[in-house]
Amino acid sequence: MPDHSRLAGGAEFDAVRALLARWGSVAKGIGDDAAVLDVPRGDSLVASVDATIEGRHFREGWLAPEEIGYRSATAALSDLAAMAARPLAMLVALTLPERWRPRLDALADGLGEAAREHGLPIVGGNISNADELSITITVLGSAREVLRRNTLSPGDALWLTGALGGPGAAIRAWSNGSAPHEAHRARFSRPSARIHEARWLAAAGATAAIDVSDGLAADLGQLAAASGVIVDVELERVPLVVGVSAEQAIASGEEYELVVGARGDFEATAFTERFGIPLTRIGAVRAGVVDVVLTRAGSRVANPPGYDHLSR
Amino acid sequence: MPDHSRLAGGAEFDAVRALLARWGSVAKGIGDDAAVLDVPRGDSLVASVDATIEGRHFREGWLAPEEIGYRSATAALSDLAAMAARPLAMLVALTLPERWRPRLDALADGLGEAAREHGLPIVGGNISNADELSITITVLGSAREVLRRNTLSPGDALWLTGALGGPGAAIRAWSNGSAPHEAHRARFSRPSARIHEARWLAAAGATAAIDVSDGLAADLGQLAAASGVIVDVELERVPLVVGVSAEQAIASGEEYELVVGARGDFEATAFTERFGIPLTRIGAVRAGVVDVVLTRAGSRVANPPGYDHLSR
Repeated sequence: MPDHSRLAGGAEFDAVRALLARWGSVAKGIGDDAAVLDVPRGDSLVASVDATIEGRHFREGWLAPEEIGYRSATAALSDLAAMAARPLAMLVALTLPERWRPRLDALADGLGEAAREHGLPIVGGNISNADELSITITVLGSAREVLRRNTLSPGDALWLTGALGGPGAAIRAWSNGSAPHEAHRARFSRPSARIHEARWLAAAGATAAIDVSDGLAADLGQLAAASGVIVDVELERVPLVVGVSAEQAIASGEEYELVVGARGDFEATAFTERFGIPLTRIGAVRAGVVDVVLTRAGSRVANPPGYDHLSR
Repeated sequence: MPDHSRLAGGAEFDAVRALLARWGSVAKGIGDDAAVLDVPRGDSLVASVDATIEGRHFREGWLAPEEIGYRSATAALSDLAAMAARPLAMLVALTLPERWRPRLDALADGLGEAAREHGLPIVGGNISNADELSITITVLGSAREVLRRNTLSPGDALWLTGALGGPGAAIRAWSNGSAPHEAHRARFSRPSARIHEARWLAAAGATAAIDVSDGLAADLGQLAAASGVIVDVELERVPLVVGVSAEQAIASGEEYELVVGARGDFEATAFTERFGIPLTRIGAVRAGVVDVVLTRAGSRVANPPGYDHLSR
């Protein structure tokens, strides 16, 4: 990694060497003080950072180390998807407790797999000893035109990729001491960053976007607040994973699905044929004082509490 | 911050709001899933990440929270300096224990001050609850031509900015339970990222560069290894802070001074007039099997052990 691959030896260098060995050709240009990259001419640079912390974003025993790595990268990549950006590169900063050292290879494999899937090189990072495992990922992307949160307009329809509720159901099961349904577990352990889907949606006329990381209702609150609008969502329309209620689904975080606005309709069938997941019109946007209005059979239902990492 | 400024409220949003209030106009374009930036046309993007962890990079009681924030940003910015890049933007990822919450404003002030000094906006970040304080900073910069580590050539002279030994002396004093000399403490608590100095050196013909983060001897080892050369350093030539031996100075880490190679001479007097610090020729580069050869009065002296964060 640029700033800490001390060739002079030591435990830190051993850890970096282990990472580089696992990453192979997905690690690129590492070994200087910083990475040097080219942003495609005419594109803007898109940058975001996201952290995954043991005991906050997952508990030991829930996930295999490969899954923790994969998931951390996906969470960061999802921010690029929400901007409809093309991934350019990733930097990985780890704080690594002694007891995680034997699992470093597996963590690296998960990170490397996510990077490889999206064709983005790991160009730098940092590794520090610590008492808590944390994986802080900076993603760099590029886009000619980005999708923002503050560009939703009254009259837009609201669309959602995929089906919700899996991660929430998996966490409920684990928290109750039971094994989650495999479909729920997979949605938590191996989420997808909707990078390609976002670019399809942007090209097809999406007006605004956000990724579902804190739960649909909470993220719609962000979108509504940023755009200064009311969003109406019919709960019956929200696609659900098996065995989950709409109320549970809209409070389920870390879904990494996308909500986008659109003036007209999308060709949802073409989207599903291409990406293998639904694209569903779940509501609409109107003018008024910022609000998220959830209805079932035409009657308003209460909004769930927001998903708050810090209060967990 | 792009991905976690949950307008829906909660402790996390309160923390983000506190940061944004302290940062004022230095925080720019925050509030979407990712930051959108323009890299100057014709420039490459330069990116690096660096983490500062409580108990590893400093101990509680050594530094005021403002100093911890300032220092964290400087450590990251120093990697841009080592590439002779112009700072473009910074992203700040914090893991924040409950007991650090009352000091969040002060941490933010230190980060904000470093950003303001270098005219670089804070464009995003992440905040998570945790048991350990960590500050992970991604710096983004740009450069038409960067200074690398692997471009030192036999025949180059080696030059050093500033005077070494302060941070090492401060840590020794604290570790012995005494108060460090104020000049030593200041070099640890308020280091400078040599951003402007690096661009001056690059324009004046520097051939390669590294910043002194692990101690001069260890970092010279990196430079020698990357370039496949032997570097010779005369210890008598290394500028020292008051009350420190050359042996101590070359093992002192987190200096954030620069070592550069050059084919010819620099106008050291002009450099010092401009930047208020010395620029000193400390050695030379020759062909041979990678090594750092330290001499005093013409005789070789032993290399100090490398500085290794993980083993501390």
